Amino acid sequence: MADRDITRRSLFGTGAALGAGALLAEAAPSAAASGAAPSTADVVVVGAGFAGLTAARELTRAGASVVVLEARDRVGGRAYNHELGGGVISEAGATFVGPTQDHVLNLAAETGVATFPTYDTGNDVYVSGSGRQTYSDTGPTGSAPPDPLLLPDLTTVITRLDQMSTEVPVDAPWTAPKAEEYDRQSLGSWLAANTVNPDFAALAAAATRPIFGAEPRELSLLYVLYYIAASGNETTPGTFERNFDTRDGAQMWRFAGGSQLICQRIADSLGDRLVLNAPVRRISQSGTGVVVTADGVTVSAKQVVVAIPPALAGRIDYQPLLPFQRDQLTQRFGQGTLSKVAAVYPEPFWRTAGLTGQAISTDGPISATFDDSPPEGGPGVVFGFVGGDRARGFAQLSAADRQAAVLDQLSGFFGPAALSPTGYLETQWAAEQWTRGCPVALAPPGLLVSYGEWIRRPIGRIHWAGTETSTYWAGYMDGAVRSGERAAREVLDAL
Amino acid sequence: MADRDITRRSLFGTGAALGAGALLAEAAPSAAASGAAPSTADVVVVGAGFAGLTAARELTRAGASVVVLEARDRVGGRAYNHELGGGVISEAGATFVGPTQDHVLNLAAETGVATFPTYDTGNDVYVSGSGRQTYSDTGPTGSAPPDPLLLPDLTTVITRLDQMSTEVPVDAPWTAPKAEEYDRQSLGSWLAANTVNPDFAALAAAATRPIFGAEPRELSLLYVLYYIAASGNETTPGTFERNFDTRDGAQMWRFAGGSQLICQRIADSLGDRLVLNAPVRRISQSGTGVVVTADGVTVSAKQVVVAIPPALAGRIDYQPLLPFQRDQLTQRFGQGTLSKVAAVYPEPFWRTAGLTGQAISTDGPISATFDDSPPEGGPGVVFGFVGGDRARGFAQLSAADRQAAVLDQLSGFFGPAALSPTGYLETQWAAEQWTRGCPVALAPPGLLVSYGEWIRRPIGRIHWAGTETSTYWAGYMDGAVRSGERAAREVLDAL
Repeated sequence: MADRDITRRSLFGTGAALGAGALLAEAAPSAAASGAAPSTADVVVVGAGFAGLTAARELTRAGASVVVLEARDRVGGRAYNHELGGGVISEAGATFVGPTQDHVLNLAAETGVATFPTYDTGNDVYVSGSGRQTYSDTGPTGSAPPDPLLLPDLTTVITRLDQMSTEVPVDAPWTAPKAEEYDRQSLGSWLAANTVNPDFAALAAAATRPIFGAEPRELSLLYVLYYIAASGNETTPGTFERNFDTRDGAQMWRFAGGSQLICQRIADSLGDRLVLNAPVRRISQSGTGVVVTADGVTVSAKQVVVAIPPALAGRIDYQPLLPFQRDQLTQRFGQGTLSKVAAVYPEPFWRTAGLTGQAISTDGPISATFDDSPPEGGPGVVFGFVGGDRARGFAQLSAADRQAAVLDQLSGFFGPAALSPTGYLETQWAAEQWTRGCPVALAPPGLLVSYGEWIRRPIGRIHWAGTETSTYWAGYMDGAVRSGERAAREVLDAL
Repeated sequence: MADRDITRRSLFGTGAALGAGALLAEAAPSAAASGAAPSTADVVVVGAGFAGLTAARELTRAGASVVVLEARDRVGGRAYNHELGGGVISEAGATFVGPTQDHVLNLAAETGVATFPTYDTGNDVYVSGSGRQTYSDTGPTGSAPPDPLLLPDLTTVITRLDQMSTEVPVDAPWTAPKAEEYDRQSLGSWLAANTVNPDFAALAAAATRPIFGAEPRELSLLYVLYYIAASGNETTPGTFERNFDTRDGAQMWRFAGGSQLICQRIADSLGDRLVLNAPVRRISQSGTGVVVTADGVTVSAKQVVVAIPPALAGRIDYQPLLPFQRDQLTQRFGQGTLSKVAAVYPEPFWRTAGLTGQAISTDGPISATFDDSPPEGGPGVVFGFVGGDRARGFAQLSAADRQAAVLDQLSGFFGPAALSPTGYLETQWAAEQWTRGCPVALAPPGLLVSYGEWIRRPIGRIHWAGTETSTYWAGYMDGAVRSGERAAREVLDAL
């Protein structure tokens, strides 16, 4: 089988359990089928996510001929619309957009996709060892829970991380004055040395699981500081708050019709220049050109843009071999471990109880939830992030036990009505053959100083895109779009 | 080209610069050629290094039919004999063996390969910012230089690491009582917090570069403790000294004829059950068997042993997909960065000056050298390890600049005669397509606790071998042999 998509969907009303192919036939009717793929082009783009499609769009607009080769039977990469019926979708992947993410916002506007505000009226829920409490994100900690026992550590940690992040240049974190000192520490060891209450570690993990799909022990401190610095743009410096918050932060808005719709619109414009079901296996370059070999199709071109996650880029055969530093980068820059679960209800019942649908929990599989209902207000959809150790443990449970654990946790957040959904969805991004983990590639200690300079350095006729290669908003749709624009500029300079 | 082997050889007497293929035609005349490869077997073994060949040998001896598929045009993997002419070889890869490495010693004895002592008479050389000094490895620090300024830190660090390593079970480091605490720290951050003299960091790196091909920032403390614990056997606990020392340590003996000779002997016994030039691309398993597809050959079997580095194992297509935890392990468990340089002289001139040929340096490309002369005592061969940041920087120099830097450094260690070699060799293991880095896969912080349990867990009909999967002497030939023996036992239980 070409792609084991383990997305599960059980709509209780119908009892249907549809495979991803069936879902996608509904969700992506515009995607081109293979067949008469062009065998030459100015540029081959590998991967039809936001990065690759943006590069292809920019190159086409500049007059270059392009062929996009996509491994899956759909476009969108880490953006993927689940069809719930009646035109309602739940985003199984990338969902939110916020201020300073101007590049994806511009692209959405140009492709005719509107934004609408994430539901954020009322109180958030916080569940920890000491019980359940509610709080407003208009308080001084924003979306972070103002746990009174942890508040001193929370304030100190966020203030210090934000301050330290200003020392880290987003285009070259490995050149920061204290790069060596920061890169030899994990976020976990830094937190252990810089917090007072040992219970703070649980709250920190409840943040890194949804943000990174990882535990604090897995993340280089330098990488975390870069990620914070990158949560902004050229005029508005990044902060932890802008990354983590809903209000004025990266979760502020959503796309009407789902984020994947932007990719589908670009795909429509590419017509038969987009080839689906075409995983790229080999890229051979010479002094005169490049030959890209995928299952069932080979394309000759002048330049190539590889717009897939670094770990997957490392699995392509390159002839001649890439410099070993680039290869060793891809041996270490693994994808995060993030699953998304969603429950569907007739109404967003939490709203009438004065809740936003947002919850943060230090216990249970889910670390954070959001209201994912369509802009019309119904049906009610809530989704949760299961990340890091919790995602790895969750995957070992049976499907029934996973669903029971999720619904039990949702009822703890929002009340017993959560136990009676009309639908339940899961997407295990780490098990997707053509993504291998979400939301982003993670730099462990040592990676950025040793290999960071190779993240987007072109190698001959090969240019690198993908959200991991962005200066701002790496890990987000905006970073992917930025990377596609930058790669297109590189290629146009080289053509 | 199937394998860009960038080993360089310039024998000044002839001016010849031979490619690896030519060298290997000399070095491995016994290796079988492809052609009429069997299309079925009880077991397919992927990779003909020490691990795969040991597994194949054990399985064959137990009566199972085996096919070994090897990507290169030679056997040996990280063991590779450079022919210097006249039957003299210099080992471009794995070289040494020592006490407690009983499994590779037994295998050598059974294949008729003798050991001889590493030359270790006289003083070692130590070069640091404060100059050059000599010392005897019969002193209390063994092969580690007794730098008076750093001695307090050295003693403390080795004592503490050895003590902490006793808490780490070699078969499951992630279950150590303090696994979380140790795995969130890098060796670099632990050293920064546990040493007094900041200059100690340079000496520590001079050790991790040859041992791991890495900087202290790249290594999980838990992994380093495991590696120390693994430097022993079931009756003799591992210690740093046993790993690092020549006298009574892992560098005590060498193999007459070179370590690769053991692999060549096993290859001879396999005949046409060994297929060279056959990189494996796909492994498909079902309820009834497994199909292994390599370039030019497909073999059906009951079980398969994958005996290649984890990063390369992750580049095979598995059908069905492996559990995502196994895949994510291979996205993070990258190979070290270690190059080997060697210079050849008419005589081992350092011996007459009372030097062992062993040097440790905090400066320059080379961090450690050894006398690599043949047992007959001539010609004189000295090799050096260039690892971690030094290997990455070294690779960016021109070939002439690299050679000049090496010879300059060797003359600083051993005197001006080092400037006039008759030959110079380099092997950049990170640039080898079918190894991608030496000596071993490295666990950054977070990896072992998050993914360690998947290192050798069989998945259906797939069994994992390779030195990285060993409990003792991971990273060494002995670990590879142990892993092959263990994988063979697993398979025999399953057949």
